[in-house]
Amino acid sequence: MSALSDLQATLDPSRKSWVQSANEPSNDFSIQNLPFGIFSDSKDNTPRVGVAIGDEIVDLAALEAAGLLTVPSKAGVFARDTLNEFIALGRDAWRSVRIQLSNLLSRDTATLRDDAALRAKALVRQADARLHLPVQIPGYTDFYSSKEHATNVGSMFRNPKDALLPNWSEMPIGYNGRASSVVVSGTPVRRPNGQLKLPDQERPVFGACRKLDIELETGFVIGGGNALGEPIACTDAEAHIFGMVLLNDWSARDIQQWEYVPLGPFNSKSFTTTISPWIVTLDALEPFRVAQPVQEPQPLAYLRHDGEHAFDIALEVTLRPQGSKQATTIARTNFKYMYWTMAQQLAHHTVGGCNTRVGDLMGSGTISGPTEDSYGSLLELTWNGKKPLELKEGGTRSFIEDGDELTLSGWCQADGYRVGFGTCVGEILPAKA
Amino acid sequence: MSALSDLQATLDPSRKSWVQSANEPSNDFSIQNLPFGIFSDSKDNTPRVGVAIGDEIVDLAALEAAGLLTVPSKAGVFARDTLNEFIALGRDAWRSVRIQLSNLLSRDTATLRDDAALRAKALVRQADARLHLPVQIPGYTDFYSSKEHATNVGSMFRNPKDALLPNWSEMPIGYNGRASSVVVSGTPVRRPNGQLKLPDQERPVFGACRKLDIELETGFVIGGGNALGEPIACTDAEAHIFGMVLLNDWSARDIQQWEYVPLGPFNSKSFTTTISPWIVTLDALEPFRVAQPVQEPQPLAYLRHDGEHAFDIALEVTLRPQGSKQATTIARTNFKYMYWTMAQQLAHHTVGGCNTRVGDLMGSGTISGPTEDSYGSLLELTWNGKKPLELKEGGTRSFIEDGDELTLSGWCQADGYRVGFGTCVGEILPAKA
Repeated sequence: MSALSDLQATLDPSRKSWVQSANEPSNDFSIQNLPFGIFSDSKDNTPRVGVAIGDEIVDLAALEAAGLLTVPSKAGVFARDTLNEFIALGRDAWRSVRIQLSNLLSRDTATLRDDAALRAKALVRQADARLHLPVQIPGYTDFYSSKEHATNVGSMFRNPKDALLPNWSEMPIGYNGRASSVVVSGTPVRRPNGQLKLPDQERPVFGACRKLDIELETGFVIGGGNALGEPIACTDAEAHIFGMVLLNDWSARDIQQWEYVPLGPFNSKSFTTTISPWIVTLDALEPFRVAQPVQEPQPLAYLRHDGEHAFDIALEVTLRPQGSKQATTIARTNFKYMYWTMAQQLAHHTVGGCNTRVGDLMGSGTISGPTEDSYGSLLELTWNGKKPLELKEGGTRSFIEDGDELTLSGWCQADGYRVGFGTCVGEILPAKA
Repeated sequence: MSALSDLQATLDPSRKSWVQSANEPSNDFSIQNLPFGIFSDSKDNTPRVGVAIGDEIVDLAALEAAGLLTVPSKAGVFARDTLNEFIALGRDAWRSVRIQLSNLLSRDTATLRDDAALRAKALVRQADARLHLPVQIPGYTDFYSSKEHATNVGSMFRNPKDALLPNWSEMPIGYNGRASSVVVSGTPVRRPNGQLKLPDQERPVFGACRKLDIELETGFVIGGGNALGEPIACTDAEAHIFGMVLLNDWSARDIQQWEYVPLGPFNSKSFTTTISPWIVTLDALEPFRVAQPVQEPQPLAYLRHDGEHAFDIALEVTLRPQGSKQATTIARTNFKYMYWTMAQQLAHHTVGGCNTRVGDLMGSGTISGPTEDSYGSLLELTWNGKKPLELKEGGTRSFIEDGDELTLSGWCQADGYRVGFGTCVGEILPAKA
């Protein structure tokens, strides 16, 4: 059997796992998924590489130590507190590990299934684990690639007639974000202080953000960088991507509106960015590839690629007020609506020679769909606070209040199994006095 | 003698070194300076920590190995290819090393002066050394803090009447830059390709930048970071700064003008940023502290600090065409003109909770003075190409041509000695075909 057919077999919809929970059609972590992350647990608080399967985590460091998993190029990369060293080994190594894990976890493979002692070493319940930031992130870039989002924001902040700026349709507009404040799901989010320009006052005041918002995004993680001066071709770009995460680009709208001209958002976004702990590989997403929207005008040559480069990923946001048991779904949308593809984003990012590095994080930009309930930010959902949302429990919301817990989730649904991202959660703490 | 008086003694203008070249009043690297960098040489190509003195470099790893230099908190930090580990030890360690080096290199200290074998091990001629990027840079931020520069750019790109935007006088406007493409002086700079919007065409074209420019800046290096959610107070900010470098924020003006709305500069600046190899410590700059410009309106409370927080650093830019022996000085200005101080920049950067890390680089923004020959960019010097500069040799320049070598230099001149930065050099290679 060739390596490619081995890889194909890991996507076989009929493959089931002896980890029963993975076989539930609505469990994010089917045997077809196998996303990578960094975890620790109460028995061993050393962060190490794991892969989610059903309600469990497979400890790759333990598997390698037990001789059940071999990395072609370099031993020891799983006993690490970030994925960078593993990712840096390249796509052949990722695929080899995926194939080995899929086989080990398959219902038909007895090795682990029938060895209770080994299973006790190699499996940790997700409920008992702590998940860490999966990668050390050398650089964080955020794009702005949803046409609906850019149009909505342009309508509100500028002019509905010229909502979309002329450059938007020609390139995936992006900006450099702040990598230091990217945190893993579950980390509390402190409401930022900053300069606010109130409409009735001549000068700005200093105080807590009054328009705290989410941005529902995905992010992709660079698996193979490029040298300074050596652009990545659009047609080759996906080979440089290790996988995807959910990303919440928390935004202070009032700080943003006052500070962003002419150099872009700064303090309004650099206080926290949250990502989900599991990186879903591009290999696992392959069956969910769909056509991107038609691009008109046709992009310049360096941004062209044949074929389908969007992915059908259902996305959802819920809001749960403090003390409430009831969360309200405030948005439902899909990654496939994005106008610019990840390949185009990466080609554009590097076309002038900018280098990228293993672990770099690239945010999609807020993912808004065509309907009013598919917008990826409260700014759009409430139209800058003018149309507050009605919660099932906890009143209404124009923007986020202290104690609110915001949860992003995302998944690709196939017939009988799911390739999901888990959740990306943050609860808001009051601003520092 | 107390530690403070020891530190004071390192600034004594009458102190001379047995390294004769350091005593020339126009040599950048007097015994009062002692800037830190990373170097290697033909005898030992392992990058390690050095300090410039006159025309020489003191090898700190060799000094420590010989027992002539002790680091209070941690041995071995000089046998490293970046300064990060040393910097992370904190200000007491920086000062202890400065005091020990000043004493060792002083004309009156025999230890090294009279030991030829030791000197052969511990001194390397700068002419024989290769200088490396001095720090691993986790994050790069660029400010926009020269009032003259912001006014000039605003006049050209927007409206001379409202050249300065309302937020500019209220905060040190900044944006996140791209850390991956920061290189050390001497690294060739490849002219970027990108989207250009020509005035006579409906759609952009792809091609080589036609308006390649410099931005004359300084940068400061974070010596002690802050935790997420814990802002640095303006009054405490200088204690978090290890030192300063020269910084050339190469800019593709045509790419910039088309791409920068609404999220700021991206590909127009991320292709290369060059910094000088020596980090001049804030301690060495202390005698050159001067008052910053009067700030009107008075900044909000979080941006206030008493006393003098500007530094009198003379700055110069020369341009030398390929094959020419004659460089033309195209700008002379001074860091003291900057409206916002480094302390205010750092306080603003962190006031919303953003964390900083050891080695983070913060660019000042283009440093323009009040007169037409003191502007820090060709954009301003030639007024967007309308008034080409006359070179001594090599014709005229509206913007930078292939093969041009641009050199920034900077120094603080005292009576009898200099605290200089050396140079920050880049030669332009033609765009990739």
